Amino acid sequence: MPSPPAVDSTVPESKHRIYLDHAATSWPKADGVTDAMVEFMTNVGASASRGNHASAMKASERVRSLRSKLARFVNAESADCVSFHSGCTSALNAVVHGLVGPSHDIGRGSHILTSSVEHNAVLRPMLVAAKAADARVEEVASDANGSLQVNEVIGKIDDATRLVALSHVSNVTGTVQPIAEIGEAIAEINQSRNASNRILFLCDAAQSLGYVPIDIQTLGVRALAAPAHKGCGGPPGIGMLYLSPEWHDRIQPWMQGGTGHDGRSDAMPQTMPGKLEPGTMNLPAIAGWTAAMNSMAALEDSATELAALSQQLHVGLNGIDGIQVFGRPGPLPIASLDFGPELPPDDAAAILDAEFGIEVRSGHHCAARIHRHLGTDSAGTLRISGGHGTTPEEIDAVIAAVAEIAAQITSLT
Amino acid sequence: MPSPPAVDSTVPESKHRIYLDHAATSWPKADGVTDAMVEFMTNVGASASRGNHASAMKASERVRSLRSKLARFVNAESADCVSFHSGCTSALNAVVHGLVGPSHDIGRGSHILTSSVEHNAVLRPMLVAAKAADARVEEVASDANGSLQVNEVIGKIDDATRLVALSHVSNVTGTVQPIAEIGEAIAEINQSRNASNRILFLCDAAQSLGYVPIDIQTLGVRALAAPAHKGCGGPPGIGMLYLSPEWHDRIQPWMQGGTGHDGRSDAMPQTMPGKLEPGTMNLPAIAGWTAAMNSMAALEDSATELAALSQQLHVGLNGIDGIQVFGRPGPLPIASLDFGPELPPDDAAAILDAEFGIEVRSGHHCAARIHRHLGTDSAGTLRISGGHGTTPEEIDAVIAAVAEIAAQITSLT
Repeated sequence: MPSPPAVDSTVPESKHRIYLDHAATSWPKADGVTDAMVEFMTNVGASASRGNHASAMKASERVRSLRSKLARFVNAESADCVSFHSGCTSALNAVVHGLVGPSHDIGRGSHILTSSVEHNAVLRPMLVAAKAADARVEEVASDANGSLQVNEVIGKIDDATRLVALSHVSNVTGTVQPIAEIGEAIAEINQSRNASNRILFLCDAAQSLGYVPIDIQTLGVRALAAPAHKGCGGPPGIGMLYLSPEWHDRIQPWMQGGTGHDGRSDAMPQTMPGKLEPGTMNLPAIAGWTAAMNSMAALEDSATELAALSQQLHVGLNGIDGIQVFGRPGPLPIASLDFGPELPPDDAAAILDAEFGIEVRSGHHCAARIHRHLGTDSAGTLRISGGHGTTPEEIDAVIAAVAEIAAQITSLT
Repeated sequence: MPSPPAVDSTVPESKHRIYLDHAATSWPKADGVTDAMVEFMTNVGASASRGNHASAMKASERVRSLRSKLARFVNAESADCVSFHSGCTSALNAVVHGLVGPSHDIGRGSHILTSSVEHNAVLRPMLVAAKAADARVEEVASDANGSLQVNEVIGKIDDATRLVALSHVSNVTGTVQPIAEIGEAIAEINQSRNASNRILFLCDAAQSLGYVPIDIQTLGVRALAAPAHKGCGGPPGIGMLYLSPEWHDRIQPWMQGGTGHDGRSDAMPQTMPGKLEPGTMNLPAIAGWTAAMNSMAALEDSATELAALSQQLHVGLNGIDGIQVFGRPGPLPIASLDFGPELPPDDAAAILDAEFGIEVRSGHHCAARIHRHLGTDSAGTLRISGGHGTTPEEIDAVIAAVAEIAAQITSLT
């Protein structure tokens, strides 16, 4: 192990802010994002699908263009498979509450399979919808690094199973789940089922879209939710749901309101994506996300860099005595760690911020159950998460800072 | 009547774009809005309530600050009465679906009163929630100008009535409803009821917040939803719900997800406003709305100007032969009109856009039922809607253009 380089912790925080909280939100944003938002608000301004004047039509064209771009990016069957939501959480609520409920496609007596590494944005709507539907939710447990095993997931599927909901990448450990293998096995099971009792395979791609290549057809998922503001480097306030055509007629609108078309009906439109998109679209965010997608470097190059950072981070952290590290090197530079009872994660994060100018996140990261497997149930973990734009020097700096803090604890105990 | 001034319709559209679609979204935005969004995204970037590093705390402070500012602006009991949503539509969904449902405070057998002038953002979630709850929805009819009568509303309240939902200002005619008088009458009825069967008075302030002074205590409403992007001149992608403290324990979270606190629980937090705010907050929009509120001129001055524009618009339009005008002069420069069967509103809007560079909206404006009262059920109306920044010259221009189009129709028929 190379010893960590010295870091000058006397430099004022503002001079060397190191942002390693990309799993919460990316920063800085991708090139051109803020410019595109300003350009839209200054020059277009109008609302999409709300009138036939030139500005409104320009706004509608922006929506159509990003929809098509994202559909191609994830290899969706068509642009109509992509609906816009106010974020990944609302996209997940739209698909869960749109399909699971007392008078919904996935109703009474259904079995829903999820895992113990899920974010509250999956788990909480699932539990509410399942209770209302009188459906049964079962969780597959992860191993001590947050990994799911294909056999364990598939082994829990029974005749009543109608929904399998799993995250692509853990927001706590950065672990990538074997989605494609699970997708293939579910597709095989679905072949012997008729349309009314097929399993929906839903993937929470909150931590993966824009970091890890996503090909809907390869992954075998039938629904996938993701935000603009994480791996894509876009703004908050916008997210997407991919939904496979076979589920378009089955989903009910979770949110209802004006749509700018079919305005005379008491009910939401029946067609996708409009049936899931009431209310004024967040056009500045659409413009910003478009710019982010345009400026995204070839995902292969970026993936190589991110994997190298992940290797550097995990190797560096694992060389430090007195801390426990969760997760393994993978495609994303994310790791969680624990300094032990002498230094709770909240305090460690405060020290990193105040003394080293390094911004990381502490706590349970909205994913409570994984901490039972990690043994960090009481106070959670300290999470270091890099992203696009993170440099090897920044990873070196956080490793050095963690080593310095760990050494101080060791010398005191 | 002064004759309308001549307008040079040969000037290219881009040279004299006249935007009169403020009821869809305001444009241009208030001073400082885009700058504040860029400043946030460039200098802060982090997510609110997601960690204790300096940037995350700055983000949380922005949220707290705007919450307090809006609470003061509407004279709410406390900042906790204001929750943030992705827009007015989601705020309305949150309050309707959070209180009306099969296992909700307003459940089976309840009577819900609304009106025939409501926007689909009120009507559609109401009908879905009432059906699920097995509750009864009744509509009070407006007069031919879209006005509601206090006695007619109050006369329909019975012992089972638990919710009265009305818009403050019609998005079709600009008509201001007698909310304070209705609120006073409902408060009187509520005095003889116990907490479990009180009536919730919900106001859709989509078209009024930022244009018309709103004092929650004077209006007597117990819930009020509004967006940033209309009268306040803020960005889309953010809206607010005011909810009176007596309903805080009664409302259930309509959307569930991560909240950055109480992360270990399977359920959403029980306290307001957090229980209604899962997911990453739209911080750039929070920053933009804050700037809009800061730059808002004294509402009294602005109200005088808007009322003068409304007077000018209605007097001017009413002086034109061959068209029918809906609405009356009031606090907002909004009017709907109909050229008759020779020129459907869609075609009229296209002519105004292409030949006069004037952007207005045609159709049903997501409020279908009012058109039955206006007699414009088949094709809707042409709506002219000004806002902050609209000038008397722009109002003159649209009056002149409408007069020119009306004269051409008359000469042809």
